[in-house]
Amino acid sequence: MTVATNWIALDWGTSRLRAWKMSPEGYILDRASSDRGMSSLSPEQFEPALLELIESWLHPDRKVRVLACGMIGAKQGWTEVPYIQTPCHPCADWKLASVKDKRIELRIASGLKQLEPADVMRGEETQVAGLLLAEPEFQGLVCLPGTHSKWVQVASGQIQSFQTFMTGELFGLLSEKSILRHTLSDDELDPDSFLKSVQQALESPDSLVSQLFSLRAKVLLDVGAARTGRSRLSGWLIGQELALAQKQWDCSNITLIGSGHLADAYQLAFQVIDVRAKQMNAEELTLAGLQSLLRNQSDF
Amino acid sequence: MTVATNWIALDWGTSRLRAWKMSPEGYILDRASSDRGMSSLSPEQFEPALLELIESWLHPDRKVRVLACGMIGAKQGWTEVPYIQTPCHPCADWKLASVKDKRIELRIASGLKQLEPADVMRGEETQVAGLLLAEPEFQGLVCLPGTHSKWVQVASGQIQSFQTFMTGELFGLLSEKSILRHTLSDDELDPDSFLKSVQQALESPDSLVSQLFSLRAKVLLDVGAARTGRSRLSGWLIGQELALAQKQWDCSNITLIGSGHLADAYQLAFQVIDVRAKQMNAEELTLAGLQSLLRNQSDF
Repeated sequence: MTVATNWIALDWGTSRLRAWKMSPEGYILDRASSDRGMSSLSPEQFEPALLELIESWLHPDRKVRVLACGMIGAKQGWTEVPYIQTPCHPCADWKLASVKDKRIELRIASGLKQLEPADVMRGEETQVAGLLLAEPEFQGLVCLPGTHSKWVQVASGQIQSFQTFMTGELFGLLSEKSILRHTLSDDELDPDSFLKSVQQALESPDSLVSQLFSLRAKVLLDVGAARTGRSRLSGWLIGQELALAQKQWDCSNITLIGSGHLADAYQLAFQVIDVRAKQMNAEELTLAGLQSLLRNQSDF
Repeated sequence: MTVATNWIALDWGTSRLRAWKMSPEGYILDRASSDRGMSSLSPEQFEPALLELIESWLHPDRKVRVLACGMIGAKQGWTEVPYIQTPCHPCADWKLASVKDKRIELRIASGLKQLEPADVMRGEETQVAGLLLAEPEFQGLVCLPGTHSKWVQVASGQIQSFQTFMTGELFGLLSEKSILRHTLSDDELDPDSFLKSVQQALESPDSLVSQLFSLRAKVLLDVGAARTGRSRLSGWLIGQELALAQKQWDCSNITLIGSGHLADAYQLAFQVIDVRAKQMNAEELTLAGLQSLLRNQSDF
């Protein structure tokens, strides 16, 4: 027996589209994903890319509610949804998107903006909303590692401030496209080298640009461990995030949203500042965040 | 009348090969260049790439001396020439390369190495040697902007220490390959934005990784000047170099080797620390440096 779709959740980012078939109680009935992220699609391709993924979950004669978060609400997305300005609740608003297919009603969650320092967010706010649903009294920092890592300061049930770091993108460019690509041969994280570099970044956060070339020089001169270049680069970049987070905020209570190697590396880095971060699952929080937005919209 | 070639100077870097036909007194009789840099050639292609450029300068029955500096002396180059360790005179040694053509004798200048912090140099040392020939008593810093900028501390006729910054490469990667490529639309340097960013980098040299994304956010939010992204990025990166140079060395006497837009930007940045750098021509110094190495080798 197939359980009927109550609503469909979407996390539609720059490079991926993820979809979940949901029960009224918030259980996952099915999931699907594709690489048809926002940046790979032209406007007329959005609807076909979505239908391709969720076709089998739709009813022939009843509208299914679809609620999306992520870059799909950006200017280059399906429908531009205005940013809500911080401080604010992370999932405060949404906008109806124009859809041709009569079986779907699509709403896209708002992103967040901060004016000083200028910053924007689309997608991560939904995870923070999910966190606040699980822990309404949460007060502290939320760290969301990724291509563009986000650090979010939460208090009084609102996002007070946040900061984006291009850590993942910088790591990718330096390790794959720069002269360091010949040098960073280690595949697995070397915890000692990584932790040492986090420590260095915390002690001298200004020295990143001068450290980079030394990775190559050390290999050419055969001094230092040539096999730990990636671990060192990763440690410096994550250490820089930590140094700047400490400068801006109280870092005693950090919740880390994510899993896998990258989240492991952040968790390891937090050792250096004597913090054991609570780790939460990004998928669960995204779905909880979207579900809360659904419930708050009585007309939906 | 064609003046006979006395010797040939080469600056053979990663991406370019430059050659000069020289008179005994050090005058330039002719010049030629190609994009057959070290990194684009396999070992058997070095000699043809050189002959292609200097064929018409050779004598059918007499060996012409060719003296080269740059990456051509690296492990992946024509002949690996060992590094000389700092502190040392910048042009202290060379090595004979194996050549099939009987009309050429090729010598390649040594590069320099520094063990702590680990760093290497191939090519720039020859320019510093040229500077020391012009000013034997020079004491101060030499700044050589480029893909990998070098800062060189000179005293007592020797290179005491040096530091490589991947500034040019980082600027290229961020402005052409990162998400910021959509944002950095200004073609010409905006002096005000540039200087403001240099100042910011000097005040908060640790904040680079957190500033980067704000360039994009400012454009998305239409706050701040969208048209000055490249100038800001350039100012932050060059400002970081300056901040670290100030931390390590006395920056009251800087000589800037180079010309064109990049050197102009560095000269502008020095305003912020109240330094007017003496500017010198890279080609002249390279040739003077190679000439001095030629003279010191009585057997050549």
